[in-house]
Amino acid sequence: PLKINQTNKASSFKVVTSQRGVSVRAEAINTEIRKTEAKVVDSVVVTELSKPLTAYCRCWRSGTFPLCDGSHAKHNKETGDNVGPLLLKKQ
Amino acid sequence: PLKINQTNKASSFKVVTSQRGVSVRAEAINTEIRKTEAKVVDSVVVTELSKPLTAYCRCWRSGTFPLCDGSHAKHNKETGDNVGPLLLKKQ
Ligand code: FES
Ligand code: FES
Repeated sequence: PLKINQTNKASSFKVVTSQRGVSVRAEAINTEIRKTEAKVVDSVVVTELSKPLTAYCRCWRSGTFPLCDGSHAKHNKETGDNVGPLLLKKQ
Repeated sequence: PLKINQTNKASSFKVVTSQRGVSVRAEAINTEIRKTEAKVVDSVVVTELSKPLTAYCRCWRSGTFPLCDGSHAKHNKETGDNVGPLLLKKQ
């Protein structure tokens, strides 16, 4: 079994198993979305927004990414996090 | 020392120490920004954007949050992640 002799309240780690053993490393935020892309960047031409208010995801858990589908609520509840969307308003 | 007898390639954990001992739990994305707020939501009135292009942070590491300051690059390099900003374009 892995033995961790030192831990840290403030830090985040990922426990990774591979053929070389078990390691602990800094943590990715996005585990699912468009992982074949080197960097996931999206563009919005704001003059083309159709609704008065559109919510864009910043939690990387949305099933309709880059839009927010409310999945941040489950993520926040499960992890104690406090993330939420960016709201684009036409006025 | 903590002993972890079972690990998982795909899952993310946080190692937490407290007076009740050491636990491993699902991972928060935002570790620093406005942690006194229950949910961090920001609004942009798109008609008030001053520049042709404005980048908004989705990595929760920016020193100028909710704006992107390029800190996603360090986060991606350190963790193997692929997150990036939302670009708001006036046209
Ligand atoms: S689903 Fe990601 S911020 Fe709402
Ligand atoms: S600094 Fe967070 S996306 Fe660029």
